[in-house]
Amino acid sequence: MEVRRSFHEELQQLIAQLLMMGDMVEQSIAKSIRALKEQNLELARQVVEEDDAIDALELEIEAKCLELIARQQPMAKDLRKIATALKIITDLERIADHACNIAEACLKIGKEPLIKPLVDIPRMAELARGMLKKALDSYANNDVQLAYEVCRADDEVDSLHNQVFRELLTYMMQDPKNIQQATSLLFISSYLERIGDYTTNLAEWLIYMVTGERKKLND
Amino acid sequence: MEVRRSFHEELQQLIAQLLMMGDMVEQSIAKSIRALKEQNLELARQVVEEDDAIDALELEIEAKCLELIARQQPMAKDLRKIATALKIITDLERIADHACNIAEACLKIGKEPLIKPLVDIPRMAELARGMLKKALDSYANNDVQLAYEVCRADDEVDSLHNQVFRELLTYMMQDPKNIQQATSLLFISSYLERIGDYTTNLAEWLIYMVTGERKKLND
Repeated sequence: MEVRRSFHEELQQLIAQLLMMGDMVEQSIAKSIRALKEQNLELARQVVEEDDAIDALELEIEAKCLELIARQQPMAKDLRKIATALKIITDLERIADHACNIAEACLKIGKEPLIKPLVDIPRMAELARGMLKKALDSYANNDVQLAYEVCRADDEVDSLHNQVFRELLTYMMQDPKNIQQATSLLFISSYLERIGDYTTNLAEWLIYMVTGERKKLND
Repeated sequence: MEVRRSFHEELQQLIAQLLMMGDMVEQSIAKSIRALKEQNLELARQVVEEDDAIDALELEIEAKCLELIARQQPMAKDLRKIATALKIITDLERIADHACNIAEACLKIGKEPLIKPLVDIPRMAELARGMLKKALDSYANNDVQLAYEVCRADDEVDSLHNQVFRELLTYMMQDPKNIQQATSLLFISSYLERIGDYTTNLAEWLIYMVTGERKKLND
């Protein structure tokens, strides 16, 4: 006998899949920065390889969202939960792309000695990961306070990025031999800054999901 | 007497608004690059200022999409048209953000003499604008062929970006005085490359809109 699952069960499954995707993306950020710090090229390659699975999961969740909207015609809060999933998976996928870009920059730097000890870049990555973690908890628990915290943390990421940017320019001017690697680090810093922006966009959707109000907080 | 507009009229209005937003974004790209070429800081500031109107229009279209889905419970092709609008306005908004980033980089370069004549960067911008124009025509006319053309053009943008990147690194190494401006140009090139990526994502949605099939073409 065929048992037709309830809408509620399908929605729960969608949420579980989205959280799984979020977890994979968080791991990608963590791994890409560990690869950079340890100059672990094997790990960097792993981040690049694992991106396909994240892309595939995005398409799977997206199809599920569209199908649920078409077939179940959900109302109000349920529709907001699904529309939010449909929107934030794009942010998640782009965050993963940037983790991938960071890993590719690691591969470019290779095993050559780092021009400076990395402190602020790993700190930015830690902050960005923390923001993403909070955003996912906010999605899981309909917690609007957590979503606001995500938006606030982005300021710190931005200010670290500006600091790293100025510092790397100085390194480049001091010695042309630093230019190539400093450029890679500059882009890594800008990827992390953008991960912070995507996570903020994502959090703005979470505020909508819970409250029904759309606000732009970081522009 | 209150006249309730038909769903069809509301959908047409949504499409018109989206095309208007697309037109504004296209103008932003064109203006930001003209500002760079002519070192026209007034025009650069205008691009930054006009970004607010694009952000506001995004939220307006988004609200309309969500409302139409909730209230009209559209099926099949109509739902795909609305879901596509809901997704691609984010790409449009981010393209506009990058035009804004380009304008900010112009302001940073200011009136100091350009370290090299700009050829490839305006060419990239022209290509990216052409891609966006095609994508918008594709949305307006449900033309899947145009959407495929958009995806193909992205390869040329990517290869120009790689060329610009290598060239600017050489300029930096030749003379440390070039570093600051070359870094700005490097980021401008990477913004254009990303505009190409966003437009490709957008075109992938257009293929879905017409055919009902989601494919990732540029990963």
